Amino acid sequence: MAEIRHRVGINGSADAIYRLLTTDEGLARWWTTDTSGAGEPGSVIHFRFGDDGPRFEVVELVADRLVRWRHQGELPEAWMGTEVRFRIDAEEQQTIVNFSHANWRLADDFLAHCSTKWAMFMMSLKAAIETGRGKPFPDDVHIDFDE
Amino acid sequence: MAEIRHRVGINGSADAIYRLLTTDEGLARWWTTDTSGAGEPGSVIHFRFGDDGPRFEVVELVADRLVRWRHQGELPEAWMGTEVRFRIDAEEQQTIVNFSHANWRLADDFLAHCSTKWAMFMMSLKAAIETGRGKPFPDDVHIDFDE
Repeated sequence: MAEIRHRVGINGSADAIYRLLTTDEGLARWWTTDTSGAGEPGSVIHFRFGDDGPRFEVVELVADRLVRWRHQGELPEAWMGTEVRFRIDAEEQQTIVNFSHANWRLADDFLAHCSTKWAMFMMSLKAAIETGRGKPFPDDVHIDFDE
Repeated sequence: MAEIRHRVGINGSADAIYRLLTTDEGLARWWTTDTSGAGEPGSVIHFRFGDDGPRFEVVELVADRLVRWRHQGELPEAWMGTEVRFRIDAEEQQTIVNFSHANWRLADDFLAHCSTKWAMFMMSLKAAIETGRGKPFPDDVHIDFDE
């Protein structure tokens, strides 16, 4: 199984970051403005990028520490069976976010694309906290000309 | 073995991108300004980030298509045994760069850090071609407060 990993240090509290990972309003500030369904474990969050987009079930929440999602549905197909995890670690001068998108069947070109794109969104999360302005879809950073 | 992958689409020719991956002057425009030793297979490139930095042996070059490096020496230790590969694919409206940093023993926090950092440098390579101005060290994008 292949995995995408990222790690950023954010000048902000674990609590503020946790809210951006667990509420529709928070997620809309860094991933896609069209987000609905965030809530307790068992909730299914729908992230729309234009017409449609992926759904994730919230599978584990530890306040200010951990967020885990399991992919739901068939969109995109390559994400079926994958899991996303955000681990939040408060350090002395910053709060670390460790990101993982795991259980990919193939480390193919689409994984490579998603890896770069997740890095842009981790930087968007960082900017949303530090400057008040992230870059969620449809204002996301484009990494190629097919987007 | 764990692997970092990235993929960007660049508005530029395969030839121009290949030069930025195979010459000291080119590499200095997007990874670190202090680069020396680039050349034919067997060459050892030394990338310095301040006092020191990693060395890679050029192991394979296919003009405008492929660049492969094998890590040399012991800096950083986690990169020992790893390989870097850039695959260049000319498409109709852009040129794709597929990046891999493979053969990591552990998918640990340092891999996660390097994954995000490589994404910044792939965007730096893209900008160096498209705008004439990349963000090589020491003007690189910081992803945390330990850098």
